[in-house]
Amino acid sequence: VTDDRPELTVLDTDECWRLLAAGGVGRVAMEAADGLVVMPVNFAVDAGVVVFRTTEGGLLGRAAEWGRTVAFEADELDHQLRQGWSVLVRGELRRVPDEDTGPLIEAVAPWARGERNVVGKITPSQVSGRRVGTVEGSL
Amino acid sequence: VTDDRPELTVLDTDECWRLLAAGGVGRVAMEAADGLVVMPVNFAVDAGVVVFRTTEGGLLGRAAEWGRTVAFEADELDHQLRQGWSVLVRGELRRVPDEDTGPLIEAVAPWARGERNVVGKITPSQVSGRRVGTVEGSL
Repeated sequence: VTDDRPELTVLDTDECWRLLAAGGVGRVAMEAADGLVVMPVNFAVDAGVVVFRTTEGGLLGRAAEWGRTVAFEADELDHQLRQGWSVLVRGELRRVPDEDTGPLIEAVAPWARGERNVVGKITPSQVSGRRVGTVEGSL
Repeated sequence: VTDDRPELTVLDTDECWRLLAAGGVGRVAMEAADGLVVMPVNFAVDAGVVVFRTTEGGLLGRAAEWGRTVAFEADELDHQLRQGWSVLVRGELRRVPDEDTGPLIEAVAPWARGERNVVGKITPSQVSGRRVGTVEGSL
């Protein structure tokens, strides 16, 4: 019996950043007071950090204010072809000072209604990624 | 200035399960020895638990063997319409005994090559969800 499914391969750091560069939707995971949370965010990459917008006083907004270690994951997975990639970024989440958010506010327009003028940035301490299948670039 | 972006609404538990019932790709987050990890898995829902397949001895396989509290997130997000939903399941990850995996092995066929005959199940202690926009069902 042969197994013709594609191999799972490890991505190098450059490839991880190349895949993240397109931005889109990723997920931020962190330990909250009542347990682990995983929340989708609309993100962009700016000068080697992952940035997203959130609400003042919300869970991510407060975490960014205080500075918290988080994990960020983005992926593109093609259900039909059964292949894709996943990148994991670990690092510290911090709030971007309001005076520096100008160009970032446009880059990461949130979907939902309401004020989301807190820009969180995740400064990576570790980046890793995996790919299933051989498709290059975006799927 | 009016804000014509859709509202963010909270989903009730029934709606969360209805959305998860289709299965697909979700993400398991857990605290590993070296920090938080978030990993995509091909999942299915079976009798109120989230199930997926993984490798014996891998990170998720070991976590399932030992029993670990994890968070599982699934979402369907439409980049063009800028709307979608996200469901978060928290609970204990356990390995399904091999003698009970029969019907589940087919339900959650993994994409990547290799033996993935460990079936992990997440028994929910908490389920929550959010929706942006008004589209019903799958996007």
